[in-house]
Amino acid sequence: MRFELESAIDVLRRTPATLQILLDQIAEPWARGTEGADTFSPFDVVGHLIDGEETDWIPRARIILARGPDPRFEPYDRFRHRGRNVGRSLSSLLGEFARLRDANLEQLHSWRLGDADLDLPGNHPGLGRVTLRQLLASWVVHDLGHIAQVSRVMAKQYRDEVGPWVPFLPVLTDHEAPRS
Amino acid sequence: MRFELESAIDVLRRTPATLQILLDQIAEPWARGTEGADTFSPFDVVGHLIDGEETDWIPRARIILARGPDPRFEPYDRFRHRGRNVGRSLSSLLGEFARLRDANLEQLHSWRLGDADLDLPGNHPGLGRVTLRQLLASWVVHDLGHIAQVSRVMAKQYRDEVGPWVPFLPVLTDHEAPRS
Repeated sequence: MRFELESAIDVLRRTPATLQILLDQIAEPWARGTEGADTFSPFDVVGHLIDGEETDWIPRARIILARGPDPRFEPYDRFRHRGRNVGRSLSSLLGEFARLRDANLEQLHSWRLGDADLDLPGNHPGLGRVTLRQLLASWVVHDLGHIAQVSRVMAKQYRDEVGPWVPFLPVLTDHEAPRS
Repeated sequence: MRFELESAIDVLRRTPATLQILLDQIAEPWARGTEGADTFSPFDVVGHLIDGEETDWIPRARIILARGPDPRFEPYDRFRHRGRNVGRSLSSLLGEFARLRDANLEQLHSWRLGDADLDLPGNHPGLGRVTLRQLLASWVVHDLGHIAQVSRVMAKQYRDEVGPWVPFLPVLTDHEAPRS
C-alpha cells in the first residue's frame, strides 16, 4: 500500500476516539496494568501519544518544511510523560490527546502538501536522512502499534485467568520481551 | 488481576464500538490488507468475531450451565466466516457484530452468575476440562487479541512507506510468522 495523505489522515483521526472507547472510565487494573518492569500501561501509552503530539510528529514536520540548511530533529524523550502526568486522570489525558491530535491534523491539512513537499528531507538524530512522507507514514504506524500494545497489555492482565486456553490465545505469549 | 464478571463485561461491551471507530468507512486497502497468505484482514477479523458470537462463547456457556453429564463443546470453525460473508460490506458486518454482542451480553447478564456458577466445568474438544470462568476470561482476551491484530495488520500495510523507521516500529516486525 502506497502512502496517500488523505488516507493517512483518516487513520490518524480515528486514534483518539478508539482509545476513548477502549479506555475511558475503565477500572484501574485495566488502565494501570503493565507487561512488567519498565513497560507501558495503557495510561502510559496515552501519555506517550500526547508527547508525540507536542514534541515529535508535527514539530518534526515543521523542521522539514522550514527547508533550512540542516533540518535536524530534536531527540525524542520516550519517558517525558512519566513526570508530566503524575496526578492526572486517564480521562483527562484522553481528552487532551484528542484536542492535540485534532489541532495537529488541522495544521497538517492546512499545509496542502503535494508530492514534492512529501519528498523533502529531514535529519533524524538516530536514523539519518528521512523524508516527510516517511515521517507521516511512521506517525500512522506508531499510532496503530500503540493501539495494539494497549489491547495486548490489557489482555495479559487475564493471563492467569484463562487456564488451559493460553496456547490458543497468542496475544498472551507473543511478546514475552515486549519492545513497545 | 482476578476475573470479575462486571469488569469483564465492561471490556466485552467496548469491542464493537472500538472496531467501528477504527474501521467503519475506511478505505479498502486498510480493510482488506493481510499479513500474508492464510492470515486475516480486518474484514476477516470482524467476521471471525461474529462467528464467536454465534457459535462459540455464549453457546459454550449454555452447554456448561445446562449441567449435563458430558458438557462437551462443539468444535469451533475458525474459517466459517470465509463462506458466510462473501459479498457483505465491512459496515454491515460491524453493525451485525454490535447487535449480536449486545444480545449476548444481555443474556450473560441475565444469568446473574455467582462464584459457584463460574466454577462449573465444560469439556473442550482440544483442551479438556475448563471452567465457565476460564471461558469468559478467554472471551475477553480473545477480543483484545483481535483488536491488537487489526491494528497490527493495518500498520503492516505501510511497512514499505516508513523507510529507515522500521527498527523503531516493532509492530512491523514482531510477528513475522503471525499466529492470530
